Amino acid sequence: MIAGIEFGGTKTVVAIGHADGRLVEEFRYLTTNPDDTLRTAVEWIRLRGNPEAVGVGAFGPIILAQDKPEYGRMLATPKPGWEGFSLSAALRDAFPDVRIVIETDVNAAALAESRCGAALGLDDVVYITIGTGIGAGMLSGGRLVHGALHPEFGHLKVPRFSGDDFAGVCPFHGACLEGLASGPAIAARWGAEASTLPPGHKAWEMQAWYLAHGVLALAAILAPSRVVIGGGVSQVESFHALVGSTFRKLSAGYFTYGEGVDFIMPPSLGQQAGILGALLLVACG
Amino acid sequence: MIAGIEFGGTKTVVAIGHADGRLVEEFRYLTTNPDDTLRTAVEWIRLRGNPEAVGVGAFGPIILAQDKPEYGRMLATPKPGWEGFSLSAALRDAFPDVRIVIETDVNAAALAESRCGAALGLDDVVYITIGTGIGAGMLSGGRLVHGALHPEFGHLKVPRFSGDDFAGVCPFHGACLEGLASGPAIAARWGAEASTLPPGHKAWEMQAWYLAHGVLALAAILAPSRVVIGGGVSQVESFHALVGSTFRKLSAGYFTYGEGVDFIMPPSLGQQAGILGALLLVACG
Repeated sequence: MIAGIEFGGTKTVVAIGHADGRLVEEFRYLTTNPDDTLRTAVEWIRLRGNPEAVGVGAFGPIILAQDKPEYGRMLATPKPGWEGFSLSAALRDAFPDVRIVIETDVNAAALAESRCGAALGLDDVVYITIGTGIGAGMLSGGRLVHGALHPEFGHLKVPRFSGDDFAGVCPFHGACLEGLASGPAIAARWGAEASTLPPGHKAWEMQAWYLAHGVLALAAILAPSRVVIGGGVSQVESFHALVGSTFRKLSAGYFTYGEGVDFIMPPSLGQQAGILGALLLVACG
Repeated sequence: MIAGIEFGGTKTVVAIGHADGRLVEEFRYLTTNPDDTLRTAVEWIRLRGNPEAVGVGAFGPIILAQDKPEYGRMLATPKPGWEGFSLSAALRDAFPDVRIVIETDVNAAALAESRCGAALGLDDVVYITIGTGIGAGMLSGGRLVHGALHPEFGHLKVPRFSGDDFAGVCPFHGACLEGLASGPAIAARWGAEASTLPPGHKAWEMQAWYLAHGVLALAAILAPSRVVIGGGVSQVESFHALVGSTFRKLSAGYFTYGEGVDFIMPPSLGQQAGILGALLLVACG
């Protein structure tokens, strides 16, 4: 038996299951301060036995380099109380001599979609989520991408949609991709939540433009064979087809491997991607 | 003894040396048609003995997946006669039972700079070259990035420099990064070769803007710890410092690992990067 924990900005999920991603039982609850949030997960796991390993997908920024003493420590985050908290130290205290593997939530989701979801069997995969922010997890040659810290995909800059002069909502960059196309950006620009804007509203053409430019940057840098786009702001009808056709127009026949209709896909694991990814991490992290 | 070959659009370099990158002897000559170009390299190598392995860095696009029968085959290229030519088949005929490892020229250069150059010892490294085109080789977690084909970094799109309405020279995309900031783009925009434009010319401020946006996309996607920029158009005085300061302004304190003055560096192997990378490939390709 192994355990998985997904620490999200709003909710935390804890589960027991197997290293191949089969989930036996899970429990979802609200994320509060780090001590309470972690204790709830630990107690829930302990009632079910002593895990052989614990896989964790967490919001970031978080240090992922396993050879550093700061492995699993949270960096500057607006989430109260979490900055400086070490997930690995807390979990080692709770489960001594148990292997702990820590990843970002988006990398865990990318792994899950590539092992049992919409990117099944593919080794070069990006999972994008569009919600309060825009983030991405990435698998390159079958391995999760960390780099010097981990990708912060939402903060690249893309050309403006013609006539869009909205200042953007990113506190760092204003009009980066996240500043122009996250849920709060849409709400601020149109005065309405994304979920209330119907298919065919101009907001979606603009949204597809921004996302397609992000996908173009991914194609130029990582050359993924599939891009899975999830999160609340991707739920509108035909969203993936619209991003796909915009991408193909921008690509102009150049990124030919991205011309199939299955290059840009919705996730197939939905809400489960993060926690399944946490279980899968144990075997490959 | 191992052999290395660098097939460039203009010149080809062949060398013998060791798998740790120590070069014993090299020979440079003009790239012509594939048969003649390859034969020259093969004869030069044979005169020096039978190599244990051959590492190749080549211009692209080229198929890099070692498990495909098309491994080492050139795809659509404007270079006459090369489209469809299989480097691996030709080299296997010339050196039966010898291990052949094939990479892009930019990946070979990225590997060389990370093993014995300006990114010594780093595992997350990008090598950009700006000349006739803009390309990049990438090392993520110590492994060369291939993806579905290989990165075509020059073809991402970035926001316009204020007031720049030049249409761009990319035959596919017009104003992609390569279309706006390659050598031919500079020559067409300013009516003068890049090498004749003095430091302080407005061209360099604009050039730094475009390159810094490309580096921002790299930071958001691969999070490299160092970006090495080479190629003819990067030779002007203070170019790397200017791209670095523009990147830091754009990053606005977000990509903190990129704030050091050594984040963006010139190559230290110069003309030798490609051929040294070809030798190094044998041990890690």
